[in-house]
Amino acid sequence: MEKINLKHLADELHLSTSTVSRALQDSHQISTETKRRVMELAHKLDYVPNPHASSLGSRKSKTIAVVIPEVFDSYFAQAINGIETVAQAHGYHVLIYLTHESAQQEQAILHAFQGGRVDGVLMSVSAETSSTEHIEALQAQGVPVAFFDRAADGIETACVTTNDLESSYLATRHLLDCGCTNLALLSISRQLSIGRQRIAGFQKALAEHGVAFEESAIIDCTNDPEENYRIIRKALEARPRPDGLLVTVELLTVSAYQACYDLHLGIPAEVKVVSFSNSRSATILNPALTTISQPAFETGKTAATLLLKGLKNNNKALVAGQVVLPSLLNIRASTVGVPAERLPV
Amino acid sequence: MEKINLKHLADELHLSTSTVSRALQDSHQISTETKRRVMELAHKLDYVPNPHASSLGSRKSKTIAVVIPEVFDSYFAQAINGIETVAQAHGYHVLIYLTHESAQQEQAILHAFQGGRVDGVLMSVSAETSSTEHIEALQAQGVPVAFFDRAADGIETACVTTNDLESSYLATRHLLDCGCTNLALLSISRQLSIGRQRIAGFQKALAEHGVAFEESAIIDCTNDPEENYRIIRKALEARPRPDGLLVTVELLTVSAYQACYDLHLGIPAEVKVVSFSNSRSATILNPALTTISQPAFETGKTAATLLLKGLKNNNKALVAGQVVLPSLLNIRASTVGVPAERLPV
Repeated sequence: MEKINLKHLADELHLSTSTVSRALQDSHQISTETKRRVMELAHKLDYVPNPHASSLGSRKSKTIAVVIPEVFDSYFAQAINGIETVAQAHGYHVLIYLTHESAQQEQAILHAFQGGRVDGVLMSVSAETSSTEHIEALQAQGVPVAFFDRAADGIETACVTTNDLESSYLATRHLLDCGCTNLALLSISRQLSIGRQRIAGFQKALAEHGVAFEESAIIDCTNDPEENYRIIRKALEARPRPDGLLVTVELLTVSAYQACYDLHLGIPAEVKVVSFSNSRSATILNPALTTISQPAFETGKTAATLLLKGLKNNNKALVAGQVVLPSLLNIRASTVGVPAERLPV
Repeated sequence: MEKINLKHLADELHLSTSTVSRALQDSHQISTETKRRVMELAHKLDYVPNPHASSLGSRKSKTIAVVIPEVFDSYFAQAINGIETVAQAHGYHVLIYLTHESAQQEQAILHAFQGGRVDGVLMSVSAETSSTEHIEALQAQGVPVAFFDRAADGIETACVTTNDLESSYLATRHLLDCGCTNLALLSISRQLSIGRQRIAGFQKALAEHGVAFEESAIIDCTNDPEENYRIIRKALEARPRPDGLLVTVELLTVSAYQACYDLHLGIPAEVKVVSFSNSRSATILNPALTTISQPAFETGKTAATLLLKGLKNNNKALVAGQVVLPSLLNIRASTVGVPAERLPV
């Protein structure tokens, strides 16, 4: 089967390729009758426009990029589903790009977008991202960028997050109410706004409880599971030993549980654990995991809606402002010790 | 910052845009000195080619598409990482497309590729896919397609899978060796080759053990967690009750465990469970999960290598043939009942 191109259509209809092209783009310069003939033949021969060629005319790729750190995380998997729901309803393609938490990768990806590959970008910045020049350069070229979950500081645009400070505060208060006296917070993104908010919520709860905050309570982890296991194990071997962990990134949960197992520390008897996690496995872990679960699907939907609204109105500068959706604390056996099967899920 | 385009470069250098364009493409029609001047200015002004424009010339997007059912599954997340490792080393972009197990979505995605958006496609077909016309149509237009994990029947191309029959046979034999007498297999893709292979391995082990195979032992599940919970719970309420489950898709594990919990069926005392799963959480489940883990990263790497080799040699018809990489059986508490922390992980 040979690929049908503009020239085939033009030859068959005894028209110029430029007339066929303009007819397919519904140009006012072409008569209704000609448009009808072109459309009919294009349909009959199953003509598919070359997206590169038609983009040159319209300067629209009908494509949005989603730039995220990882797909291992249930949060991002659910957010992608929310984004796709909205994009598909508006005829947009969604392309997914992974930074693997590398600022350099993120810069390379955004630089490639300057060529006009995508109409707009939804992003959740990498844990390493500290400068924002690559994002501003893209905005300056008229490609709108909106953030979800992890925003970059100092960029004026639409941003959909959850109430990170408040939910971290609630989780910390829950650990203190369960009797913990020496808490640690596991983080991979202390320099990001999201990381700082979660630390601020942690500090607020400690202060309210009359517990002094020590810098050493913040444990910096990485993107490598093996290294995280060593870091967390070392933290649990320190004296006084932490008796409560606030895990601010889902992927750290396996390393934290494994370190407790290997050190024969009972969860929750000796160490209580709360994780920011959207994993469906939370209810079947040993023990079932108390989680802060974020409205991932809704966040993706809302961010995509804001971006597409901006694109539709040709309003390349998206309305700056933050939409904050609430997270939920789900109390399970990793903090309260009731057998998993007795708890609501 | 205004976007630098070909015209800016041409005006500055007093050359025509077509000369600048050909110089940037290293055309033999342009003198070395002119090429040098153009390259220097392009570099100085940080010129980024419009990918749509340059694609029209070279007919190469330097992009490969990965078409997969889901990103919730650890297997696909790891396979993507393997694919990206190879693609990045060769300067290719990787675009990820999700079918959500829908044959219709898969057809729409592949149809859009006919416009020349990507140079080649790596795919793992949806659970619903039964006809292959959409794949053949793409191949007929010179876009090579290679399969990984889940292949479509009857398409001659490169294909990287695991030893599904053998590993399913091993898992089933393990369940029988543990004393199970009434096994059930949970599937979502009975019509795919991968699903049939796993069922064949199951049947082979039963036959060797002198156990008759009943059609009712195959439990058809879906892509919806709530529905799967109901299906699996119903299967576990049947008499005689299954005392061993071979879970052939990772996402069914949570529903299977939850159904056992809610029916107060002890794992492994009353029901033993083995899952095809690459989840890092397997070791921290309650109880730790016996798994068949697939070489996901290697599979992605190998499939991408075969595709890029074909593209490089302009050999659009990839060498047909199957690469089979071995999976591993990891025995944990969900079949043998030893506490999770005592077992090698």
